[in-house]
Amino acid sequence: MNESITQYKCSICNQLLAPNEGGAINGVWFCDDHLKNQNNLSDIQKTEPKYNYPIQTVGIKDLKFPIYISEKNGGKQHTVADIEVYVSLDGDTKGTHMSRLAIGVQKFSEYQLHKDLMINIAEYIKNKCESRRCQIIYKFPYFISKIAPVSKEPGMIHCDVVFDLISEVDEYLFTVTVTTTTTSLCPCSKEISNNGAHNQRSKVKLSGSVSNGFVLWIEDLVKIAEDCSSCEIYSVLKRPDEKYVTEKAYENPNFVEDMVRSIYDKMIKLPLVDFDIQVANEESIHTHQAFARMKRNKEDVVNYK
Amino acid sequence: MNESITQYKCSICNQLLAPNEGGAINGVWFCDDHLKNQNNLSDIQKTEPKYNYPIQTVGIKDLKFPIYISEKNGGKQHTVADIEVYVSLDGDTKGTHMSRLAIGVQKFSEYQLHKDLMINIAEYIKNKCESRRCQIIYKFPYFISKIAPVSKEPGMIHCDVVFDLISEVDEYLFTVTVTTTTTSLCPCSKEISNNGAHNQRSKVKLSGSVSNGFVLWIEDLVKIAEDCSSCEIYSVLKRPDEKYVTEKAYENPNFVEDMVRSIYDKMIKLPLVDFDIQVANEESIHTHQAFARMKRNKEDVVNYK
Amino acid sequence: MNESITQYKCSICNQLLAPNEGGAINGVWFCDDHLKNQNNLSDIQKTEPKYNYPIQTVGIKDLKFPIYISEKNGGKQHTVADIEVYVSLDGDTKGTHMSRLAIGVQKFSEYQLHKDLMINIAEYIKNKCESRRCQIIYKFPYFISKIAPVSKEPGMIHCDVVFDLISEVDEYLFTVTVTTTTTSLCPCSKEISNNGAHNQRSKVKLSGSVSNGFVLWIEDLVKIAEDCSSCEIYSVLKRPDEKYVTEKAYENPNFVEDMVRSIYDKMIKLPLVDFDIQVANEESIHTHQAFARMKRNKEDVVNYK
Amino acid sequence: MNESITQYKCSICNQLLAPNEGGAINGVWFCDDHLKNQNNLSDIQKTEPKYNYPIQTVGIKDLKFPIYISEKNGGKQHTVADIEVYVSLDGDTKGTHMSRLAIGVQKFSEYQLHKDLMINIAEYIKNKCESRRCQIIYKFPYFISKIAPVSKEPGMIHCDVVFDLISEVDEYLFTVTVTTTTTSLCPCSKEISNNGAHNQRSKVKLSGSVSNGFVLWIEDLVKIAEDCSSCEIYSVLKRPDEKYVTEKAYENPNFVEDMVRSIYDKMIKLPLVDFDIQVANEESIHTHQAFARMKRNKEDVVNYK
Repeated sequence: MNESITQYKCSICNQLLAPNEGGAINGVWFCDDHLKNQNNLSDIQKTEPKYNYPIQTVGIKDLKFPIYISEKNGGKQHTVADIEVYVSLDGDTKGTHMSRLAIGVQKFSEYQLHKDLMINIAEYIKNKCESRRCQIIYKFPYFISKIAPVSKEPGMIHCDVVFDLISEVDEYLFTVTVTTTTTSLCPCSKEISNNGAHNQRSKVKLSGSVSNGFVLWIEDLVKIAEDCSSCEIYSVLKRPDEKYVTEKAYENPNFVEDMVRSIYDKMIKLPLVDFDIQVANEESIHTHQAFARMKRNKEDVVNYK
Repeated sequence: MNESITQYKCSICNQLLAPNEGGAINGVWFCDDHLKNQNNLSDIQKTEPKYNYPIQTVGIKDLKFPIYISEKNGGKQHTVADIEVYVSLDGDTKGTHMSRLAIGVQKFSEYQLHKDLMINIAEYIKNKCESRRCQIIYKFPYFISKIAPVSKEPGMIHCDVVFDLISEVDEYLFTVTVTTTTTSLCPCSKEISNNGAHNQRSKVKLSGSVSNGFVLWIEDLVKIAEDCSSCEIYSVLKRPDEKYVTEKAYENPNFVEDMVRSIYDKMIKLPLVDFDIQVANEESIHTHQAFARMKRNKEDVVNYK
Repeated sequence: MNESITQYKCSICNQLLAPNEGGAINGVWFCDDHLKNQNNLSDIQKTEPKYNYPIQTVGIKDLKFPIYISEKNGGKQHTVADIEVYVSLDGDTKGTHMSRLAIGVQKFSEYQLHKDLMINIAEYIKNKCESRRCQIIYKFPYFISKIAPVSKEPGMIHCDVVFDLISEVDEYLFTVTVTTTTTSLCPCSKEISNNGAHNQRSKVKLSGSVSNGFVLWIEDLVKIAEDCSSCEIYSVLKRPDEKYVTEKAYENPNFVEDMVRSIYDKMIKLPLVDFDIQVANEESIHTHQAFARMKRNKEDVVNYK
Repeated sequence: MNESITQYKCSICNQLLAPNEGGAINGVWFCDDHLKNQNNLSDIQKTEPKYNYPIQTVGIKDLKFPIYISEKNGGKQHTVADIEVYVSLDGDTKGTHMSRLAIGVQKFSEYQLHKDLMINIAEYIKNKCESRRCQIIYKFPYFISKIAPVSKEPGMIHCDVVFDLISEVDEYLFTVTVTTTTTSLCPCSKEISNNGAHNQRSKVKLSGSVSNGFVLWIEDLVKIAEDCSSCEIYSVLKRPDEKYVTEKAYENPNFVEDMVRSIYDKMIKLPLVDFDIQVANEESIHTHQAFARMKRNKEDVVNYK
């Protein structure tokens, strides 16, 4: 009689297994050698460290995931995020179980990303890791529809967004950072030149922190940046639009200093805990950037990165 | 009687307009100055160039868009792409109408990305730009589910993908490039050391070109890379999984040369026009990388980047 | 008789100049049109801004220069720096004269870079710009000779260094940051696996600030990083050396948490105002990094980037 | 009498050695365990590979070294290079001895970098590695003095350079690539707008290959790029200079297509084997770039990267 016999291989060393050799865990086969000690794995992380200093920030970064978030107009937008997750670690424990941080992100990956979801992920992870503190950061490109100013041709630009949630025992701080691109035209160049004026891309980076119910929309930060520049940027511009943006920038010249001051004047009116304004003009007449920064924080002290 | 009077401003210079002053285009108001010449814009691009050489590649790059594509298992995946679009330009024309390239991408942005869509976009753009040739490139991160080998805990890794379509008058060439990460363990280090062996991340970059109906799946290129390395990489690994990947890499040591040769042996069996294999090992004992490359192309000649 | 006549062109518009037309400034010729207003340029920067907020940080970044610095052993090392220079700006002045910042760097570019030179550049710039505050940052690669551990074959590795000088009215703060690469081997992987242990590159970033005469050498920060890792990294390793580094890492396993704690224990003993320790392990079994950070600052408060 | 006794530790495991235990190699001490097999290390690289395909490109990349090169005016310039070194490998050998590549670079690191030095390094490495082919690549920033056009204030800009040497059995190909920055001003924007015109940074990347005695100077490639753009870029510009560059760009508008064609017209007159011209305009009115490329190569066929 012909009996078909399934023969297994060790998934580690590829060795063929004799009928009574080895064994399987969750359907994965191992030879005797690679099977041994499988049920008896030490937990080195739980042991005593050599130096028992507490660590405030330990975790993982550069974990990439697809996400989706709500647009201000009610739409839903799919994008991809680079994620960082950190916890605090007490002085008497050698290591964090890093897999629990990745599992925390994975578990909530089907849900729409917003501040409250991040608070929930942080609670889950603080609980799993027995930590007092958890910080979660999502960095992602965000897309905004832009209709060309005269031809009304549809287009799309992107900005770079960071959602940063710090969850402590009884409080949290949520910070939204948006880096977007606008046009700036130099007032000095315009004033002293017979014709023309040099102009360039400005990278405007705006951060605002809240610890309450105020919602700071990405779209609103982009709007502030655009309103304080010489002209907005578009992805599609037909000739009447190109005329428009050229003339508009020429009529609205702005130094990098003018831009941060105008933005400061708008940000100071929002109910924010802290905020930070950075503008870098990629000068078309130099290889270097012109840069200005204004910060306001709780302690009313300006720190430098 | 009280009559409310709407008063308009010039959208360029913000000057208030008197009742009979200025005018609107598509609802956008201009003062007399900024209105003039609006209907009479020259088409500089259409004029004669100073040097009448034809240009094979001219267009736009770093245009970002959300996209979605089909997974091998039939699922649909949302991600974001960096896009390049190029056309050829005849020697008698000064410039390309670049807005038509951005409009082409925008027009098809609601559809699922695949080779046939890219062929359609290229046809549309070739027609609009009166070009003989169009090249379209989409670069995007792509996500692949990875179940931990022993604990079966779900996770996700990403790879970097490029879809590159060159559309000529009567033919096309479509190239898929995937850069993914695996583990490599050094056979020399294992052999000569009492214990352990240095191991590291390998970046494996595989390109394959087709000009017919053959479908080259991202998942299949990732699988080839993983099968030819010391061990796969995962985002979530519990302790039994960490034991598994450590022992598996130790039992399957590979030089960077072994990896490109094994991959070559698999790629040569696929119905590809050209292919290119690059592996960079981020050595854990150096700050430099170990690198190997094997190419095969139509002319059976190896070119160098 | 043949008299050669030199004929000039306008350097702006290339128009040939008639004998009595145009004129030259510093040997540069202009037509009448482009010559006009040359001696009468407004100083827009000096005018009143729309919003009179003071700005603490305004200046230039991404200015590249060749530099040379002293090595701890007395040698002189040439390298290249990315430079940032910022001043503060009072509320009543519209703009900074940015050219004065670039001129300040240029003027001192022949001298050896060290803290005292940076203090001098800052004084020069504060004076020229009538500012109370100046910050100067030099970022550069720095090279360190490394002799292979057994074969004694010479080699060289590099680390990334930042010199950051903040000069206030009566005080300064000087911060040295070094990012170097070492090997780390996972203690958990070693403990639970029959053979081998995953290991990887660690990027160790150490910052220390001083406001007095203490000299913090780049070489000493690199040494601290190496002493607290599983093994040093080399550029040249022959086989006896490869055996050495493989076995040494295997005998000295370290979590990212172990590394920051050991480094903290060394840094806390130095006479530093502030310090900051960041370690990122580029895990060979994941695409993400394991990261830990410990800071100590004047206010004894830990801030997060 | 007191006799001081030196006690040694194993350099691998830090174990204290008893008087007759262990031994030293080149002054490095080992315990008996870590000493064993030291004189008997297998040479795995020399063994037979599983697949005996020859490999054309295998080696190391991202090796950083300080270098110095000659300027066109006879001066000597120090800078730092990222280095790649590759050899070919026959089908019957499992691996390359990568340390020999790093040693080759190290051995010649005291000499001035130029084509002939690279030919010598390649010969040395081909000999050590028994290879038919060697490719060596040095990538480095290069600095060029720029005197401000009207004020004559001195400054400095940098460009990015690649020296690429391919050494075959009886011939070589040496390619110089320079990426430099200039200003471009849009002819269409100027023509259709009442005032002003958008302008931006152009990144111009020029490659030229020679296989004979012709010397292609970095300075000459930068000059070609500048002559074909709307205006040069400077690091220091006082107000008369800013007026100059603004007006000069306005009087010399250029599409990206105009730039590549003008450059082509100059490059075609040089005694080059191959050349490649790429210009990317970082549009101040978009977030994307306008790009054009023209190549000429030996086979008179245009390839795409």
